[in-house]
Amino acid sequence: MDNNVKKSRKAVVLLSGGLDSSTVLYYAIKKRYECICLFFDYAQRHKKEVKSARQLAKSAGVKLQIVKISLPWTKSSLINKWQKIPAKNDIEKTSNVPTQFKELPSTYVPGRNTIFISFAQSLAESVGAQKIFIGANAVDYSGYPDCRPKYYKALNGVLKEIGAGIKIEVPLINLNKTQIIKLGQKLGVPFEKTWSCYKGGAKPCGVCDSCRFRAVGFSNAGAIDPVRN
Amino acid sequence: MDNNVKKSRKAVVLLSGGLDSSTVLYYAIKKRYECICLFFDYAQRHKKEVKSARQLAKSAGVKLQIVKISLPWTKSSLINKWQKIPAKNDIEKTSNVPTQFKELPSTYVPGRNTIFISFAQSLAESVGAQKIFIGANAVDYSGYPDCRPKYYKALNGVLKEIGAGIKIEVPLINLNKTQIIKLGQKLGVPFEKTWSCYKGGAKPCGVCDSCRFRAVGFSNAGAIDPVRN
Repeated sequence: MDNNVKKSRKAVVLLSGGLDSSTVLYYAIKKRYECICLFFDYAQRHKKEVKSARQLAKSAGVKLQIVKISLPWTKSSLINKWQKIPAKNDIEKTSNVPTQFKELPSTYVPGRNTIFISFAQSLAESVGAQKIFIGANAVDYSGYPDCRPKYYKALNGVLKEIGAGIKIEVPLINLNKTQIIKLGQKLGVPFEKTWSCYKGGAKPCGVCDSCRFRAVGFSNAGAIDPVRN
Repeated sequence: MDNNVKKSRKAVVLLSGGLDSSTVLYYAIKKRYECICLFFDYAQRHKKEVKSARQLAKSAGVKLQIVKISLPWTKSSLINKWQKIPAKNDIEKTSNVPTQFKELPSTYVPGRNTIFISFAQSLAESVGAQKIFIGANAVDYSGYPDCRPKYYKALNGVLKEIGAGIKIEVPLINLNKTQIIKLGQKLGVPFEKTWSCYKGGAKPCGVCDSCRFRAVGFSNAGAIDPVRN
């Protein structure tokens, strides 16, 4: 029985090992939440980010729960190596989803964030956490529909119906990458431990969406990226 | 690329192998949807329902996709054998979730239906399906919050924000078990292939919520359950 679960200030933090999620983790800690991080192994080609997630959770002194899921039906280039990761957000040519969504880049993983949040809901209910933190961002992003404010508002509507008092927080949603990096610096995020590149090679590729947003962010913040290619 | 995915009348059907989901499958087929079924192995103690799901999908001539997930944090009696499955919906004594939800029975699996729907969203987006069918029911049920109409309305709000034209259908939501059985009979559902008991023994236990609702349903429908204990 979980009746003895202490009703403390707990939060589930979705930690991918990248810039945004690590900043959100440090943000949640700063807000005095006792954090449990969730990392998803969904056969992403940049699975090396799990190493970053582990190091970041260790640095922050929080628990990390790794969840393995399988999405055999998706054609996303983030999972399938026969697909090329686009060098820039070249939408028309790289869509991996049916015609009605052809504006989406091939890196889009259908349902991914709903799946992440649903597991976070499960964990939050089970441990009595009141918050789910996710580093979604709708400014310097690839245009994924599951990174927009309205999507999270709708998901909070679902959580309200569950009645467990859980709410999703998206503190970075309206910040640009530069503002996120500045916030991370202020919070003491060890950026050298983060990983952003979609390709998951030995060094960042420097040309995928994720690398490009990161590079512009550091440049505009007047800072040097410790994980440069 | 999925650009060639034909925009046909496709549906993802959540198939647990029970009475309700099998009726929903036959309902969706009757509505002329090309169905792909999703079954979840979440370490439920009545995992033998996968056999029923396989047989039902075969009978109906549709594809079945099995998804394995792990929810190591949940204390639900539907997963953990050290927990007793309640003989009746004895709420106060059997809650498996923190105090704010103590009205829930121990068989409740936190986040389960959100997880199921999120995978269904992923599959539906990937194959270009317009509907997700689920046999949720808010009449003869155990009081789970993720079986109520408002919850599905909220989830449809999330899908709307994804912008993929996918909608969840809950055709049984307001039917009682007797009405569901009568509908299933009309649709030709092979009830002898279904499995409902939470315990997953050689024969149905006859005392868990799921068995009790089923027994009352068949009795009131004036029918004999082919899977009696």
